[in-house]
Formats: sequence, structure tokens, C-alpha cells
Amino acid sequence: MASPISFLSDFGYADEFVGVVHGVIARIAPTVRIIDLTHGIGRGDVHGGAMALTRAIQFMPDGVILAVVDPGVGTSRKAVAVRTRVGYFVGPDNGLLAPAVAMVGGADLAVSIEAEEFRLPSPGATFHGRDVFAPAAAVLASGEALLEDLGPLVHPEALTPLLIPLSERAGAASIKATALWVDSFGNVQLNVSPEDLGGLGLVVGDDVSVAREMMDYRIVWGKTYGDVEEGEPIVHVDSHGQIALAVRSGRADETLEISVGDGVVIGRPGGGNRIEITDA
Amino acid sequence: MASPISFLSDFGYADEFVGVVHGVIARIAPTVRIIDLTHGIGRGDVHGGAMALTRAIQFMPDGVILAVVDPGVGTSRKAVAVRTRVGYFVGPDNGLLAPAVAMVGGADLAVSIEAEEFRLPSPGATFHGRDVFAPAAAVLASGEALLEDLGPLVHPEALTPLLIPLSERAGAASIKATALWVDSFGNVQLNVSPEDLGGLGLVVGDDVSVAREMMDYRIVWGKTYGDVEEGEPIVHVDSHGQIALAVRSGRADETLEISVGDGVVIGRPGGGNRIEITDA
Amino acid sequence: MASPISFLSDFGYADEFVGVVHGVIARIAPTVRIIDLTHGIGRGDVHGGAMALTRAIQFMPDGVILAVVDPGVGTSRKAVAVRTRVGYFVGPDNGLLAPAVAMVGGADLAVSIEAEEFRLPSPGATFHGRDVFAPAAAVLASGEALLEDLGPLVHPEALTPLLIPLSERAGAASIKATALWVDSFGNVQLNVSPEDLGGLGLVVGDDVSVAREMMDYRIVWGKTYGDVEEGEPIVHVDSHGQIALAVRSGRADETLEISVGDGVVIGRPGGGNRIEITDA
Repeated sequence: MASPISFLSDFGYADEFVGVVHGVIARIAPTVRIIDLTHGIGRGDVHGGAMALTRAIQFMPDGVILAVVDPGVGTSRKAVAVRTRVGYFVGPDNGLLAPAVAMVGGADLAVSIEAEEFRLPSPGATFHGRDVFAPAAAVLASGEALLEDLGPLVHPEALTPLLIPLSERAGAASIKATALWVDSFGNVQLNVSPEDLGGLGLVVGDDVSVAREMMDYRIVWGKTYGDVEEGEPIVHVDSHGQIALAVRSGRADETLEISVGDGVVIGRPGGGNRIEITDA
Repeated sequence: MASPISFLSDFGYADEFVGVVHGVIARIAPTVRIIDLTHGIGRGDVHGGAMALTRAIQFMPDGVILAVVDPGVGTSRKAVAVRTRVGYFVGPDNGLLAPAVAMVGGADLAVSIEAEEFRLPSPGATFHGRDVFAPAAAVLASGEALLEDLGPLVHPEALTPLLIPLSERAGAASIKATALWVDSFGNVQLNVSPEDLGGLGLVVGDDVSVAREMMDYRIVWGKTYGDVEEGEPIVHVDSHGQIALAVRSGRADETLEISVGDGVVIGRPGGGNRIEITDA
Repeated sequence: MASPISFLSDFGYADEFVGVVHGVIARIAPTVRIIDLTHGIGRGDVHGGAMALTRAIQFMPDGVILAVVDPGVGTSRKAVAVRTRVGYFVGPDNGLLAPAVAMVGGADLAVSIEAEEFRLPSPGATFHGRDVFAPAAAVLASGEALLEDLGPLVHPEALTPLLIPLSERAGAASIKATALWVDSFGNVQLNVSPEDLGGLGLVVGDDVSVAREMMDYRIVWGKTYGDVEEGEPIVHVDSHGQIALAVRSGRADETLEISVGDGVVIGRPGGGNRIEITDA
């Protein structure tokens, strides 16, 4: 039976790129359903695409993940397809796929997509989303081809990794963290877990110091937005289980002036957390 | 048989939120079709979402309406599901659903969505669209659960209402009105019906006074854009049967400087309609 | 069996217009699949919509093409449906459909959509996408009606044409060209084929002069982005077989200051190509 394809890209909504990929898949595999995860990833933002895929993967149906954020198109980066326990991942081998593949337990088989018979011929430059990745996703989803048919095997553990910044302890009272994601509501996810804060002796209800350049905010660690007033910031565990900064009925990124990749020191108030931090 | 789900939100297109909701539904109810009504409602704009739903509802197939514009997430507002003659409505009880439910004749059964068995567990804050509303919509659309299975009954007439501004007569010649909607083409819908204008003695072909702060425009009441020149404003009955202001090949909101919620006095020219009006 | 509908418009993503068209189709033809080609065409940009359709058409499944970019709605322009060898095209007769119809070999049957029985009644102005084009596309896709049922026959070769600028030779060394399309990545497609450049004696690997107003760039004609450094411009054959200007990991439209419709002189360096050119 045909599996669904979950499709993420940085193609945007202004041009017909997304629709054309749907068309190519529909011609090859007319009964395959396509779920658009998002096509609003920043242009060429491999890191942002990889993070979105990692957050989403556990909620998507088993099948094929088609992900295309490909600033290196036309260079030597490989086009790959890998097999995991939740299905196939298809996309450029530039770090985009690796974190989500790791999250579902890794790949046990991988190929470099090279077989001409499953590529669309192009009159000029290859539009990889249309000519390479869409046909590969379509034949994997429909069962028309096996992974091995798509090209030579590559080592399943040789996927290009993505560098994800790790937070680190800075003394007994603080953690040097990084803003991993700012969503479109302005919420700021940090690379910090509730266990990390717990390790500093902090519990829900405590005030937390969030320091950044010359600013040192004191923000309550709450459970829900309802724990603070309108317009007030809150530290909380977000819906992905990570520590995040939010503002009730507002935007934490603007209030706290934090962008993706920025350094943040989080910890116990008065813990001497004016540490030198560097922005992305 | 499975019913379609019509899905409206303010999730936008930049993040994977919409795709994840699709994924959750597809895992629970793989054959259910999802129609994206729009996800471009302004962030937290309950009024805008409710108006869009009200305009759209009569054109959507019977099934489930899933609507999420939820600035009060994390506070005490209820998550509700109600039964109407065209199917189920699922969403926050904050006024978003009430006008559309009323338009289709009201609800005859309603529950507060609380049953744990149909919620997704979350490692932190609940993402209600993903964890509460999507599963509820999925099981209602697939027929896997009855409305009553989702939680305790609440009074079907106790849905939180939405305050929609009513126009009012101001003397024999004028109506104090409000701009209900500015669409993305710049057309301005008023809370005025053609019968209201008729009650002032106006008919198609007449000049109408449209007054706003210090401006008093005289605009013809036409039938189609073809009745005026390029760049000229027109008063007309829009495709929802409401009186609207438009500019042929232009934007009425910019030409007439009107935003959603603004007060407008409309009526017979020379009818003394320089009434004090207050903006939103 | 039901055919898919490929749907393109300038409705944007902020309002519920696209969702309502899906709803109308789903009510009439519940099993018909709709592929959204894009709804991000510039407002009223018939030329942009026609070009997108022309680029996409060969990749879409046979069925119905529903295209609505309709600045002349409410004037005397016809609503048409035509039959081609890949299926039906439905939309306004304003030039939007003609180039794509021509690309697939032309139409052999055409009607003016006028039959009341397939229109939705509207309480006011007709929203043609919703009330005229969506029902027509739905009944053609489901096979519920024949083309001839939709209205009186019109001459299939009388579709309103679109003026597409042609490039022209300017001396032995140059071509006066026009920027046909700037995609959302900033790539600039010209109305020039690789054969045109070949006719000037140029081959892949050569430097090409790209002149525009006071600027005269010398840019290599490469095969892939990998042929130039990051941030460097390249002349290449794009994925549609046309000559295009790009910048590796950058935006050619910004680097070279070129917008859609602008004139560009392209040719052999030193070929005296400082010709007077006029912008759109």
C-alpha cells in the first residue's frame, strides 16, 4: 500500500516550486498523499530546516520524509535516501536529515540517488527537488522501487552531521545556552532541558536569571502562560520538552531581544552569571 | 464513512505547526481529508478568525471544522467540541466558533474536551492544536469516537459569544457603521446590508456619502467594478451580501484610509452625516 | 474516474479564499484531488501567473487546470473553459491561460462559462473563483458535465493572447533581451535560449557580457553553481532550459539590480553592446 510523503522545504509560497513537486509525485504515484510540513523555512537555512524536521518527526505518519533545503545544489553534496524504522528520508546530504534520522534511531541502509531511470530529464540545470528528490520519494512511497534501486549504497552512518550547539555548565549556578529556535509567535527555545535547570537547584515557581549582553532579567519559571500577567515574560517547558522563553500575549524575541543562535546565560539569580557570551 | 476536516488557524506558514497538526490527524485517521481554510489569520486575532469562519462555513463540506486562534492558551478558557446540523466544530471556547455555529443554526450538543485518552501526551506545555484539538477532530471525523466520549457535557448554548459591532441608524439619512473586514485585496466590508441602505432611500446607481473623520467621500453604489473607472472607488454588495467599499484595480483600504474596526458613517449625501465616530 | 485539479491563483494566504474554493469543489466532487500550484502570484499579475502556469504545466498530472488571476473581474472579460490534449483549462479569458494552452498544443474545443446550473448563486457581487470557476472545474474533473454543458461554444483559437516580449538580435555580438521571471531565490530568467547565445559564437565556459543601463558585467557561462565562488554571479541554462542569471548563495536580482520586465543586453564581451534599452 502507498505510504504518505511528508514534505518540508525552503521553496516558499510565491513561486510554483511546491506545486510542481506535488505534480511530479502525482504523475508517478497518483494515490500517494502528500503532507506539507512547511515550505517557509528560511532560504538555505539548513539548520532551521533540520530543527523543524526534528521537532515534527515523531508526529508524522510512517512513510517518506522529503526534505529540501539545499544551498549547495550544483556542488558536490550528495543526494541521499536512507531507511529508518519510521520509513525513508530523502534529501540533500548537507546536515538537513541527520538530526531527525538520529532521533528515530538512525538509518540501517542508505544510497546516493544516482540512477538515471528515476530522475526527470532537465533541459538545463537540475532542479533537484523536482527532478531528483520528488521522483525518488514517489517511487519509495508507492513501493515501485526499492531503496537499493535508486543508486549505490553508502554507509548509513556517514550522513553529514549537523552541528547543534550544546549548552554547558558555567559554575554552580549557571548554564551557557544558545537560542535554538524562535517560532513565529516569538517564543525562544533554548538548548536547555528542565533537568539542566533542576541540576542548578531550580524548581517550577522559582525566579530564574536570564542574562544576555548587558541585560539580566529575572523571570519566573511557570507552568502555563496563565502563571504570569499579560505582557510578562515566563520561563517554561515548551511543548517539545525544552526550556523556552515566552511572553504572555507577546513576543519574547522582541521583549528580550534574542535571535536564533544568540548566547544566553540562564541560572540562579545572583549566581554571578555575567559571563562573556558571544552571539551567532 | 470518514468526513473531511476544514482547518483554520493563526499558525502561519513559517513554522511546521500546520504540518504537524496534519500529521497527528493522519496518524489517527489516515483516510480523512483535510482542507486548509487558511492559516493566515492574524496572530491571536479571534475576531478575524471568527469572521473568516462565518464567511466560509456555508461553502465547506459537512464534516468537522477545526479552528485554532487561541491567545488564551494556558489560561482557563475551555477546549470545546460542539455538534451542529453541518457537523462538528472543535476549538477554543473564546468566541472563535460562536458566530459560525450560530450561522448554521446553533449547537445541540457540546462537550469540554478533557478525556485523557484522546489527548497526546506532551513533555511540557500543551500545544493544544496538536495535542488536544487535532486528536479530537480526527476521532470525530473518522467516527472512532462520539462527541460524548471527549469529555463532560456543557450547555450547548453556553459557548462564549463574540461581540460583533452592530451598525445603527443616525438620523433619517445616515448609518453609523464599522469596517468588519479588510481583505488582502484591500476591499472593506461594512456591517451594513443593502436593505439598510435601501431604508435610507438609496438605490443602486445613487451616489452614497461615506464619511470618516475629516473626510466625506461621495461614491457611486454600483453593481460591478465595471461601473467605475480604473482607480475609482465604488460602493457595492460584496460576494457575501454585505455592503463593501472597493476601488477598481486598487485598494479601498489605502485610498479611503480605513482599517478593520474603524467607524464609518454611510448614507445620503448632504444628510448631515458628520457625526462623531470613534475608531477601534 | 475523477481527475485531479491543479489550482493557481493570486488569492494569497491571508484570507480564506483558497480554502473556500477547495470547499466548493469538495462539495460538488468529494473524491477529486486538488493540487495547489501556488496562490502567491502577485495581485492581478496576469503575466506572472501565465508564466508560472507555462513553466509548471508539463509537470502536472492530466486533469483540470484551474487558474484565477483576474483583475478584470466585474468587467466584460469572458470566463472560459477549454479542452486540450492534457485536459481542461478553466479561468478568465485575459491572457492567463493562452501561453500554457499553446505549450500543450492548443485547444480543440472552448466554451464561455455561462450555464446558470453550474454556478453558485451569490447574494451580491460574483466571486468568480468560488461561484463560477470552482464549480466548472469540479464538474469537469468529476465527469459530471461535459465541456459543452457549461455554456456556448467559442472559437478555440480565439483565447485572448498574452504579449510575451521576444528577444532580438542587435548586431553580430548582442541580443536585446528582457527579464521574464525573477524567482523568490532571486534568479533572473531571460527570454534567451542557449541556442541564441550559441548563435553569437558563445559556448559554456566563455565570459558573457550582461549590460544594463550604465553597468556592463562580465559573467562566466557555467554549468552549475559549483563553477563559481560563493557570492559570484553566473550565466547558466536554468531548469526550464532558458538562459538565466544567478548568484551562488546569493540573489542575482539584487546583485545585478534587475527586476521582471527590465531590458538586458547579453552577448560577447566587447561586442559594442551599450545599446539603449528601456525598462518595463
